[in-house]
Amino acid sequence: MDTQIGGDLSGLEVGYDVPALPGMPEAEIQTPCLIIDLDALERNIIKMGRHASEMGVRHRAHGKMHKSADIARLQQRLGGSVGVCCQKVSEAEAFVRGGILDVLITNQVRDPLKIDRLARIPRLGARIICCVDDPDNVNELSCAAVRHGTTIECLVEIDCGGGRCGVSASDDVVALAGAINTAQGLRFSGIQAYQGTMQHFVSHADRKAAIDTAVAMVRDAVDALSSHGLACDIVGGGGTGSYMFEGTSGVYNEIQCGSYAFMDADYGRILDGDGRRLDDGGFENALFILTSVMSHAKPGRAVCDAGLKVQSVDSGLPVVHGRANLVYDTCSDEHGEIDDPRAVLRINEKLRLVPGHCDPTCNLHDWYVGVRAGKVECIWPVTARGKAF
Amino acid sequence: MDTQIGGDLSGLEVGYDVPALPGMPEAEIQTPCLIIDLDALERNIIKMGRHASEMGVRHRAHGKMHKSADIARLQQRLGGSVGVCCQKVSEAEAFVRGGILDVLITNQVRDPLKIDRLARIPRLGARIICCVDDPDNVNELSCAAVRHGTTIECLVEIDCGGGRCGVSASDDVVALAGAINTAQGLRFSGIQAYQGTMQHFVSHADRKAAIDTAVAMVRDAVDALSSHGLACDIVGGGGTGSYMFEGTSGVYNEIQCGSYAFMDADYGRILDGDGRRLDDGGFENALFILTSVMSHAKPGRAVCDAGLKVQSVDSGLPVVHGRANLVYDTCSDEHGEIDDPRAVLRINEKLRLVPGHCDPTCNLHDWYVGVRAGKVECIWPVTARGKAF
Repeated sequence: MDTQIGGDLSGLEVGYDVPALPGMPEAEIQTPCLIIDLDALERNIIKMGRHASEMGVRHRAHGKMHKSADIARLQQRLGGSVGVCCQKVSEAEAFVRGGILDVLITNQVRDPLKIDRLARIPRLGARIICCVDDPDNVNELSCAAVRHGTTIECLVEIDCGGGRCGVSASDDVVALAGAINTAQGLRFSGIQAYQGTMQHFVSHADRKAAIDTAVAMVRDAVDALSSHGLACDIVGGGGTGSYMFEGTSGVYNEIQCGSYAFMDADYGRILDGDGRRLDDGGFENALFILTSVMSHAKPGRAVCDAGLKVQSVDSGLPVVHGRANLVYDTCSDEHGEIDDPRAVLRINEKLRLVPGHCDPTCNLHDWYVGVRAGKVECIWPVTARGKAF
Repeated sequence: MDTQIGGDLSGLEVGYDVPALPGMPEAEIQTPCLIIDLDALERNIIKMGRHASEMGVRHRAHGKMHKSADIARLQQRLGGSVGVCCQKVSEAEAFVRGGILDVLITNQVRDPLKIDRLARIPRLGARIICCVDDPDNVNELSCAAVRHGTTIECLVEIDCGGGRCGVSASDDVVALAGAINTAQGLRFSGIQAYQGTMQHFVSHADRKAAIDTAVAMVRDAVDALSSHGLACDIVGGGGTGSYMFEGTSGVYNEIQCGSYAFMDADYGRILDGDGRRLDDGGFENALFILTSVMSHAKPGRAVCDAGLKVQSVDSGLPVVHGRANLVYDTCSDEHGEIDDPRAVLRINEKLRLVPGHCDPTCNLHDWYVGVRAGKVECIWPVTARGKAF
C-alpha cells in the first residue's frame, strides 16, 4: 500500500530537527520519538472504514488525536472518512491548509477573534461546522459569517452524560436549532452528542448502558426537531470505546473515532462483548514511543530516555511492547525507569512503549516516524501540534 | 528594567501562529497560552542570584525548565547565572545557538549520533559538559572528541538518593574520574550530585535530611578524589527545593535551580524552616496558563479552554490564581472544569492558572507571552520545545 513520503526534508538535521530520515534503518532512529507501524495503522484505518460502512453510518475521523493532515488524508483514502473532527479553530485551519476540506469543530467557539477566523475558513474552499450550546453564541457566529460572506454550519451540542458543555433538555435543543436556522450566515446541520467519560469504562455492558442513555436523549431531540420541521444532516458522536453502539442505534449517522487508528494502553484494556481486550482482535497498537536505554547503573533497573516530556501519564504509565518481563514503573521529566530483574537490557537498546494516552502524547511531538519492515518510510509532521488556541 | 522584545514576528498570524503580538492589551491574548509576569520573573531571577552570591556559590540555571534562550540570557544578565544546565544534546544545541556558551548536560549521553553531535558543540564556541556513570561511556566520548578535535568536559554523576542514574561508591567515582582524566579529548571537571525526588517534600526538615545524606556522600567523594590528585572544578547539584542546603554545605560550589524562576503549584506548597510556603515570601508565581471561559451550560460549573494539551497534571491540577472561590477540579484533553458555586464567571472571562508542574507544561507550548502592566511586552519562543532527542 502506498504511503506518501512527507514533504522535502532536505536541510533538516537528524537529531536536532528530525529524529530520522526516510530510508534509515529503525535502529538508527534518534530517541525518544514517536514511531508508527504503517502496516498496523493502515489495517486499523481500513477496519474502521469497514465497520462504519457495515453499520450504514459515515465516519468522520477525530483529528484531535493525531493532529496530522497526512493521516487524515489516509483516513479519507483508505477508510472512507468524510473529513475530520477537531477541537480548536487553529487546528481546523491546519487541517484545511493540509487538504482536508470538511471539518467539524466538536467544540464551542466563543472568543471574538476565533469566531472571526472561523468565519473565514469557508473562503479556503472548506466546509466548516462548529457546536453551539448557548443562544448568545448564535448571534456572534452569525455576525461574523455575514461579515465575511460565508456560511458556518452549526450543530447543537447535547450533553448526554459528560456533564461538561452542551444542553440537556430537548426544548433547549429545539430553541437553539430554531435560532440557528433563522440566523443569517448560519445553517442548522444537526446534533453533536459525544459521551467522552464512558469511552474508557472497561466493561462492555457499562459502556453500552451509558450510550443507551445518550441514544434515548438524542432520539428525543431528533423527534422534537422533526416535529418543528428541523432535519438533522448530521447526528454525530461515538468514539473508539462506543462507536458500535452509536453506529447501530438507528439515530446517529456519523461516528467520530480517533484513538482506534493508533490505540494506546488505556484503550487496549477495555473489553468487548466477549470479554476480549480491544487490542486483541479489535485494533492494533500502531503508535509507539521509541526509547533507548541510557543507564544501567543499578542492579535490576534500567533507565531509558522517555519521560514526561514525551508522553502524558494522565491515564497511566506506558507499557513496554512485546517484552512481558519488563515493566516501566517510574516516570520523571526526562527519564523512565524500567524494572529489569534479569538485567537483560543493554545500553542503547531500543524499546517500543505503548503510551498510556495517545492524544496528549502525540501533541508533545513534532514528527511521526513511519516505519515498515524495519526501515523508515516517511516522516510526517504533527501538523496541528500545539494548535491549542 | 529592560526586557528584549523577541525577534521579528511579522508574517505570523495571531491565533494561528502566535497567541499575541507585542503591544496588545492582555485581554486580547488568544487562549490557552502561557503568559509570564515579567516583573515577577525578574524579581525571582535577581533574588536567586543574590542568594547564590551570599552563599558564595555559582548559579547555573536549569534550562530544562523553561527551554528558553531568552530567559537563560536574562538569568545571566540579571541573576549572574554562569550558563545553563539542560538534559538533552538537542537542547544544548538550541541554547548554544541562542547565545548561551557554557552548557552542562546533567545527563548521560550514550547514543553514537548524539555523542558525535555533543563532540561538535565546542566548535560553535561553547564549553560543553556532560555526566558519566559508566566506564564504557568514557571511551565513546573520548573517541568522538578526538575525531572532532574538541574537548568534552565530564562530571561523574553520583546517585545521592534518587536511585536513577549515577554511581554510589566513592571508589567508583574515583575510578571513573581517573579514566576521564587520562582519556584523550576529555577533561575531568568534577561531580554532579542532584537529588531530585526530595525537592518536592513539603517539610523543610525532610528535605534537609535528604540533602545531608547527599552532602556526606559528595564530601566523601571529593576527599577521595583529592587524595588521588583529582580536583573538582564543579561540584554541582541543588534545585528550587534544596539549594539553600547545597549552597551552604561547604562542598557544593554550583547550584542548579530551575523552577524558582517561574514557580508552580507543587513547589508553591513546600515549606521553609519557618513553616512558610515557598510561594509566600520565597519566589513569586511568574508563569500562568491564561485560559478563557467557553461554556457555562451547567449551574455552578464553568468550562474553560485549558486541558491536558496545554499542561501536565502529573503533579496535580492547576490552581486558579487570585480567585479563592474558584476551583479547577477536572481536566480533560481540551477542557478544564471549574467549580464556580456562585456562578460569577462570564463567557470569555480570562483566568490565570498556576500550573501543577512547570517543566513539562512549558514543553507543550511554542511561545511565552511576556506581560507587564496589562500589556504584552514580548513574545519569546520556547527555544528548545520538543527537543527531547
